[in-house]
Amino acid sequence: MTAMIPGFHGVRRALTGEGIRIKEVWIAEGKDSGRIREIIQIAREQDIPIRFKKGAELSRILPGVAHQGIVALAGGFTYTDIDQLVGISLQHSGQGLLIAVDHITDEGNLGALIRTAAFFGAHGMIISKDRCAGISANVLKKSSGGFAHLPIARVVNLGRALDILEKKGFWIIGSSGDGDLSIYRFDWHRDVVLVLGNEQRGLSPSVRKRCHQVVSIPPVGYDGSLNVAVAGGVVLSEVIRQRKALQGP
Amino acid sequence: MTAMIPGFHGVRRALTGEGIRIKEVWIAEGKDSGRIREIIQIAREQDIPIRFKKGAELSRILPGVAHQGIVALAGGFTYTDIDQLVGISLQHSGQGLLIAVDHITDEGNLGALIRTAAFFGAHGMIISKDRCAGISANVLKKSSGGFAHLPIARVVNLGRALDILEKKGFWIIGSSGDGDLSIYRFDWHRDVVLVLGNEQRGLSPSVRKRCHQVVSIPPVGYDGSLNVAVAGGVVLSEVIRQRKALQGP
Repeated sequence: MTAMIPGFHGVRRALTGEGIRIKEVWIAEGKDSGRIREIIQIAREQDIPIRFKKGAELSRILPGVAHQGIVALAGGFTYTDIDQLVGISLQHSGQGLLIAVDHITDEGNLGALIRTAAFFGAHGMIISKDRCAGISANVLKKSSGGFAHLPIARVVNLGRALDILEKKGFWIIGSSGDGDLSIYRFDWHRDVVLVLGNEQRGLSPSVRKRCHQVVSIPPVGYDGSLNVAVAGGVVLSEVIRQRKALQGP
Repeated sequence: MTAMIPGFHGVRRALTGEGIRIKEVWIAEGKDSGRIREIIQIAREQDIPIRFKKGAELSRILPGVAHQGIVALAGGFTYTDIDQLVGISLQHSGQGLLIAVDHITDEGNLGALIRTAAFFGAHGMIISKDRCAGISANVLKKSSGGFAHLPIARVVNLGRALDILEKKGFWIIGSSGDGDLSIYRFDWHRDVVLVLGNEQRGLSPSVRKRCHQVVSIPPVGYDGSLNVAVAGGVVLSEVIRQRKALQGP
């Protein structure tokens, strides 16, 4: 399994962090900067081969991705332990943010959700072993490098994992079309595990009964539904908007 | 070309509105209600065949879709005239909301964007003839019936279409990763054409120079990007949140 990690942040994080084994680093010919030299040094220290390629070739291999002339080839994905996720998230006390995925089988959707969760700075994702797509090369590709920014834990029983998280002080918040509180009305200033259900069936009963609150995105005009990655993006945007309260450019 | 329109609202709208030719209506066996009888009557008046199917069969044909036991088979998609879109949108004076699509070639992304725009009650979409995927059967399928709720106009030159819309009083607002104002800070209480760019290249120069403002979704943590349908959903959610200002369940 090989996946591409584009961009300085992603490559640097992959080289210095855990969870991903880097097989090679590709750098666009003619690129030279302090950041490039730092990455070359880190890679050399770990005996990771560096190959120089034409910038146009990188763009052809990674269409639609801002690779900044640097790409790492990852040779496999290592899941993170759930205790580690808890530790990372609770460093941001009162603003903890984990995503739990209840039965998403479509690899494209899971990859898009990883990309989205990484974009909005979620601290990690929990997926269930039996009822969810695994982190395949296709999922990694669809995440557009987002996986390098998002630790992912895989658990046998999502319900039990939520019990553990609740004991650690997280609020378990489900998101579902039939949720009874608008995402805009819920107060997101707390440590949250956001549970996203299956597009078709919503949240499973064993997950739903563990939710302190089930929220929904109020539709406008007709009772349609959203793709699960789009819904995840909308909820995460609202979490971040409330927490940052008008920060940003 | 055949596409499915699920649910009462969609089927009713498709039967009574313009833009879509209905070939057949499928109803789940045993379903009977005032709404069902109304649709049967409308279909019969138009000599549209009605077929009764098992509910499980409808669910198998439309996995992941809340079809409510009723589905229409659409035999083609008719684009709406841009003047009509303007008329529909300006009925909601001060809250007009059109989506313009600047070069989205991926059919899955365009379909997901139509689904998302319909969910958030956009009044219509404008796509460019040369630089954008057309409304194919695959696009309609990926929209999960959303197309029945969203008039779509196709124009030869998107820049010129934006000029017309500006003269009609719309604000032309681009969304791009390098926009210089956060979507959360922009005041969406005005008639807006939201222009979504290509994932890879963002907004084209001829579109960008026509924008009164280019907004962006501030990333958290790393300079990643979002899928165009996810980005569209996030921006539309903020538009609606501001306009409804804490309405909803």
